[in-house]
Amino acid sequence: MTPTVGIVGGGQLARMTHQAAISLGVRTVVLCPEPDAPAVVAGALHVSGHPESFEALVTLAEQVDVVTVEHEHTPLAHLERLAHLGHRVAPGAQAAGLGQDKVEARRVLSQAGIATAPWILSSDGGAIADFGAVHGWPLVLKAPTGGYDGRGVWILEPDEVAAVVGDGTRPFLVEPHLPFTHELSVLVVRTLSSRSGAAEVVAYPPFETVQRDGQCVEVHTPATVPPQVAAQARTLAVMIAELVELVGTMAVELFVVPDGAVPGGHRLLLNELAVRPHNSGHLTIEACTTSQFENHLRAVLGWPLGATDLRVGAASMCNIVGHLDGSDPFDHLPRALVIPGASVHHYCKSARPGRKLGHVTATAPGLEEAKSVARRAVGALTPQADRSAS
Amino acid sequence: MTPTVGIVGGGQLARMTHQAAISLGVRTVVLCPEPDAPAVVAGALHVSGHPESFEALVTLAEQVDVVTVEHEHTPLAHLERLAHLGHRVAPGAQAAGLGQDKVEARRVLSQAGIATAPWILSSDGGAIADFGAVHGWPLVLKAPTGGYDGRGVWILEPDEVAAVVGDGTRPFLVEPHLPFTHELSVLVVRTLSSRSGAAEVVAYPPFETVQRDGQCVEVHTPATVPPQVAAQARTLAVMIAELVELVGTMAVELFVVPDGAVPGGHRLLLNELAVRPHNSGHLTIEACTTSQFENHLRAVLGWPLGATDLRVGAASMCNIVGHLDGSDPFDHLPRALVIPGASVHHYCKSARPGRKLGHVTATAPGLEEAKSVARRAVGALTPQADRSAS
Repeated sequence: MTPTVGIVGGGQLARMTHQAAISLGVRTVVLCPEPDAPAVVAGALHVSGHPESFEALVTLAEQVDVVTVEHEHTPLAHLERLAHLGHRVAPGAQAAGLGQDKVEARRVLSQAGIATAPWILSSDGGAIADFGAVHGWPLVLKAPTGGYDGRGVWILEPDEVAAVVGDGTRPFLVEPHLPFTHELSVLVVRTLSSRSGAAEVVAYPPFETVQRDGQCVEVHTPATVPPQVAAQARTLAVMIAELVELVGTMAVELFVVPDGAVPGGHRLLLNELAVRPHNSGHLTIEACTTSQFENHLRAVLGWPLGATDLRVGAASMCNIVGHLDGSDPFDHLPRALVIPGASVHHYCKSARPGRKLGHVTATAPGLEEAKSVARRAVGALTPQADRSAS
Repeated sequence: MTPTVGIVGGGQLARMTHQAAISLGVRTVVLCPEPDAPAVVAGALHVSGHPESFEALVTLAEQVDVVTVEHEHTPLAHLERLAHLGHRVAPGAQAAGLGQDKVEARRVLSQAGIATAPWILSSDGGAIADFGAVHGWPLVLKAPTGGYDGRGVWILEPDEVAAVVGDGTRPFLVEPHLPFTHELSVLVVRTLSSRSGAAEVVAYPPFETVQRDGQCVEVHTPATVPPQVAAQARTLAVMIAELVELVGTMAVELFVVPDGAVPGGHRLLLNELAVRPHNSGHLTIEACTTSQFENHLRAVLGWPLGATDLRVGAASMCNIVGHLDGSDPFDHLPRALVIPGASVHHYCKSARPGRKLGHVTATAPGLEEAKSVARRAVGALTPQADRSAS
């Protein structure tokens, strides 16, 4: 029994999914244009073509048992057509769409009673200023689709809005900049049994994410939130997975904000959905009984899901990003390998300033030790100039 | 920095080494005849040829930064010639030879004062009977080279010797069947820094192995031996790694026998060396900070070695072997995936009765729970007929 999973996209998520597939005896085929994409050089089979080409998607689908998506801009209409042609696509176009369109995600989830920050969709500087007057400055403006890693996100004071809004042809998702105490990500996995069709959903414990300039730089677990907040975050993620009829792994990103009505109370507000394995879940490889990548494969194949509990007391992940001078941190890989307890992941991508090129995870009985090890390993790959800049 | 490691052989050890190589950004190229070998279908690059062909070895060596060996019968003279041609070979022919030739290993290690069981090399039924009269029956006869997984090992009473020895043209390594209390395996890794040439050696905690019909069936950690025995086993493994000038991962298999001279005392006797990553170390993937496969890669590349400590309280590994009826246990993979906490490894080999086709590792705070999970997962793949036979 060696099923084959097709992945639209050949980046680091596909690379780590391929690595997980080896344990399960699953073959992977990735669709991407680059012959040296991270997943291809890791040994995934390769269909050369663009993830946004319907013809290429059909070529992929015809070789595999199920198609799943890493590439966030895969046209939803293409995924729907694939499904109509009888190919299994997981997650389906509807769930995938909520990861692509921030406004649609807010609409669907708000209707289901899931709290988000107040928001408007607007291309009008005046309306945005009015919104800021009510909810307070600064505001966060986001491109409704297509943004990632801080691109397509602006945090603006009143006098900065005009420059971003420009001639008003482009609508923005506008939110107040929330006074959050924590950002959490809950990885949740849902499957439909390939035998019975019954749904199974599992959620990982919430991971605490640390962003810098809109890009995730560190992830830690256990999250430093009260147990009832952690439990509520997990419940919310499961509820959303059921609501969107997820098949696969999804990251539910949440803000924890103080609840003015209750002394010491907290509220959870939905921030974003990423309907695929996610940077915030990389530490599951070392820290959890089943990684997000293995569970994604199990889910899209209709297999039983694996346990999501922590094997360890604590874990921290730090991203390795391209240096400001353009040099490749992995030129100095042995420096990081010296740090005891650092598990280094090298994506084999060409170095560009600020580009995610890899990550380090450390596990330890306590969080402070895990953080220290992961940060030291990343620091060992960072030239002096970048260290002082950050 | 993406170095390339050549592996002679394309079986499950090469497969899991390739899987570990993905994290480090290392490419692997395997030499084996089969286009569907376990490592090849996992995505290692492939040189098609026989591991015992010098020409094929040269073809491999010319494509890689260093050559290492999975296939146990690679001719040592070939490895020496490769090194003379200027190719890096790790471990070297001398260390590799001790894994191939049980008699040579005993000679070298006995001379260094490392205790083994009493032994003779003999093809003479009379001499073997005399040895049995002195040391007690039954005796263990082993083919000096070429045996594995219980093939080439006989446990014999006096009247059974003649049938095995036959016409006396073939010598056997003859030992008493030791009244051991435990069998231990210590995985040890040694490297020479690619910068300074200085040696670094790390040993894993000892793993307790359980054999059935000469084949390893289960591995557990922590081993149920007193702490001073565990410490002594680790020290012994480090000493042997230094002695044989190992570069790479090696399994040092030891018997723990009661020491008649000291009440409650134990002695460690060397059993075998496996000069490569080993079945007894598979649980390092989930249980240890650095797996035996990643440390093997680090070692042969001259990179700093990773921490060998357990991330978890306990771990158990059970092999998945081909059913007696010839059917493939992995036809029922989802049955094993239902068991919470079971990490399944599928080697993608064709099923044959008794052939190692995969393994399951479980980690838990305590050993009994880990054993129970791993055994239940293997049991779930086993047809009723095989269960009653074992």
